[in-house]
Amino acid sequence: MVYKKVTLIGRSTAGFDAAADDAVDRAQATLENVHWVEVDELGVEIETAGEREYQAEVTVAFELAGDEV
Amino acid sequence: MVYKKVTLIGRSTAGFDAAADDAVDRAQATLENVHWVEVDELGVEIETAGEREYQAEVTVAFELAGDEV
Amino acid sequence: MVYKKVTLIGRSTAGFDAAADDAVDRAQATLENVHWVEVDELGVEIETAGEREYQAEVTVAFELAGDEV
Amino acid sequence: MVYKKVTLIGRSTAGFDAAADDAVDRAQATLENVHWVEVDELGVEIETAGEREYQAEVTVAFELAGDEV
Amino acid sequence: MVYKKVTLIGRSTAGFDAAADDAVDRAQATLENVHWVEVDELGVEIETAGEREYQAEVTVAFELAGDEV
Amino acid sequence: MVYKKVTLIGRSTAGFDAAADDAVDRAQATLENVHWVEVDELGVEIETAGEREYQAEVTVAFELAGDEV
Amino acid sequence: MVYKKVTLIGRSTAGFDAAADDAVDRAQATLENVHWVEVDELGVEIETAGEREYQAEVTVAFELAGDEV
Amino acid sequence: MVYKKVTLIGRSTAGFDAAADDAVDRAQATLENVHWVEVDELGVEIETAGEREYQAEVTVAFELAGDEV
Amino acid sequence: MVYKKVTLIGRSTAGFDAAADDAVDRAQATLENVHWVEVDELGVEIETAGEREYQAEVTVAFELAGDEV
Amino acid sequence: MVYKKVTLIGRSTAGFDAAADDAVDRAQATLENVHWVEVDELGVEIETAGEREYQAEVTVAFELAGDEV
Amino acid sequence: MVYKKVTLIGRSTAGFDAAADDAVDRAQATLENVHWVEVDELGVEIETAGEREYQAEVTVAFELAGDEV
Amino acid sequence: MVYKKVTLIGRSTAGFDAAADDAVDRAQATLENVHWVEVDELGVEIETAGEREYQAEVTVAFELAGDEV
Repeated sequence: MVYKKVTLIGRSTAGFDAAADDAVDRAQATLENVHWVEVDELGVEIETAGEREYQAEVTVAFELAGDEV
Repeated sequence: MVYKKVTLIGRSTAGFDAAADDAVDRAQATLENVHWVEVDELGVEIETAGEREYQAEVTVAFELAGDEV
Repeated sequence: MVYKKVTLIGRSTAGFDAAADDAVDRAQATLENVHWVEVDELGVEIETAGEREYQAEVTVAFELAGDEV
Repeated sequence: MVYKKVTLIGRSTAGFDAAADDAVDRAQATLENVHWVEVDELGVEIETAGEREYQAEVTVAFELAGDEV
Repeated sequence: MVYKKVTLIGRSTAGFDAAADDAVDRAQATLENVHWVEVDELGVEIETAGEREYQAEVTVAFELAGDEV
Repeated sequence: MVYKKVTLIGRSTAGFDAAADDAVDRAQATLENVHWVEVDELGVEIETAGEREYQAEVTVAFELAGDEV
Repeated sequence: MVYKKVTLIGRSTAGFDAAADDAVDRAQATLENVHWVEVDELGVEIETAGEREYQAEVTVAFELAGDEV
Repeated sequence: MVYKKVTLIGRSTAGFDAAADDAVDRAQATLENVHWVEVDELGVEIETAGEREYQAEVTVAFELAGDEV
Repeated sequence: MVYKKVTLIGRSTAGFDAAADDAVDRAQATLENVHWVEVDELGVEIETAGEREYQAEVTVAFELAGDEV
Repeated sequence: MVYKKVTLIGRSTAGFDAAADDAVDRAQATLENVHWVEVDELGVEIETAGEREYQAEVTVAFELAGDEV
Repeated sequence: MVYKKVTLIGRSTAGFDAAADDAVDRAQATLENVHWVEVDELGVEIETAGEREYQAEVTVAFELAGDEV
Repeated sequence: MVYKKVTLIGRSTAGFDAAADDAVDRAQATLENVHWVEVDELGVEIETAGEREYQAEVTVAFELAGDEV
């Protein structure tokens, strides 16, 4: 079975762990077989977010089911 | 709300700006909440394109709506 | 026409060529216009796979048809 | 208006979030229009710091005002 | 004489050349001895900019005069 | 005195700070002169770990004593 | 047939597209089978060029004919 | 339990798969808990090897046991 | 004696080993003192090649003789 | 106390050590608390310098005092 | 025979060549079959070293003997 | 006028400056308009060289004359 990778950016006002969890939560709410997550970049959005918004860009690897790509 | 990133390659015989616009046009024609675009690579295809085809590989970041990933 | 890129990880107990082919096979079974594939990373999974599982992470470039992104 | 980027290293004995906040605090205490922050590197200084000192090297982007560079 | 490098992000609605020029203009309006400029990244800001804003992050190298760093 | 670098991956279900501490704890339990630690990569293992296991790959620099390498 | 890659830097006072075209023109004036071009770096030379000289470093891929390397 | 990573270069006159296997064989002959292997670089040694010697530089990840680092 | 490096792309329908050999064969057919080869990138060309064409971009290092560069 | 990093290019006709020292000298003549220096790039300028001018691009880390950034 | 790579940081108040030699000396004092060394990074430690301490981080490749890894 | 870049590896038993000079000497003995040189990598060859041979891989940029590429 082939794995696929998609890139998400989680966001949180609490910190980097919560930002990464935000992206993982979203992935697991939709995808059935999430295997692992790599953190690509961390950042803080300030101007457009009002307060500090911690962001974690992550790449999510999951096992492809059925026949979609 | 989580952001997602997808990678597209726009193409144009006019130049690099038009090639990047080609990819952004395509993204905005389908996706509702495109926030920003990063240029990953620029190139020129010559042999298989007949004339010079400028190409811009870009990563498009948009806000995920509903429950898809 | 714009190209899109997706990232897959093919797997095989035979070797790296077969692992890359595994990902290309999957891409071509679903996508109509696969143009080229770039190998991003090679690896071997040992502990969770029982025997050596060769893995090839590849990025697949295909021509977008219709209006999806 | 042009943005400028400067690189700071925040330090904290509490953890990486606090180290990043240390650098952002310093930036915002002096600069008027901080827009976003990118985390470049995380590390822990041990020998010269007595206890573990978490460090976050960040690049701060702000809008240039007046005529300085 | 030592060179120093600073990083600026120029912005334009016209395209990437104009975005790079925007940063170079700003540098030359303030600094006396700008020698060369390296383009670090190109991007397009969409959501917060209303229309497409082309951005060019550049590193400007200039000769240090007097005794500042 | 020469420094040596070794690469460890710390693991924790609590978060990235604890994962990095896990690796630093292990290094300090065995090595006498740990000077600093660089974070190379952060990730989350999901499938094989049951719950989310935060991982921090770190490079540990320590001063070589005696005559081993 | 094997491809070879060579690296050229095109130069123009008009902009980055013209700088890239300058290098591609030179390549095609001498080499018979240029297939594609990758843009490696963009820059602007200021001090030694009098006015702004846009530069595009490109890698040119062409099919080797005869027996030279 | 913490993982450790070590870097080996396997060598073979048969090809890249065999070169990678050579390094994995060596790792598994000495280390008890090898989990996965990442391929860092592939190359071919010609002058000092007589015939073509395929080389695979790999990083081996294994679980640390006892109290060594 | 100085070494020089040139970059070639070998091609084969058989696999990555054969693609790398294709480039090394070409280098050795023309150059007298090839010392070693580094694999830069692996890929598969599909659309313009009819069947899968495995490609290996390699950098060839050889000892310069006479007075050419 | 937060660290700041700035990038300088030292120059010397004597060699790379002297070029790096040139940049460190300049930094220490102006800044009070220089802690460490990282060498980013080495190069030799030939055409515009008359004789060979060795250059060392370095990043200087110093402790910020007072309230400037 | 498999090669192994280890990373050392040599230190000297004389310059970068001596710093690299410091690490190579240490490697050869302990290891029997050192084949080559790659320079990863150069730096200068100032604050904690009293005078300028040149540092060279190098990766040492040696042939594994016996059965250790 | 277009620039071209070629990659050479200079060698010396004296140190890194002399190794870089070795490559620059060779380039200037053959090419008329060498403008600048970038140092790509430094290393030390030990096993096959008898004594320590310092190596500097450099990229040489020169102005193309006539009509060759």
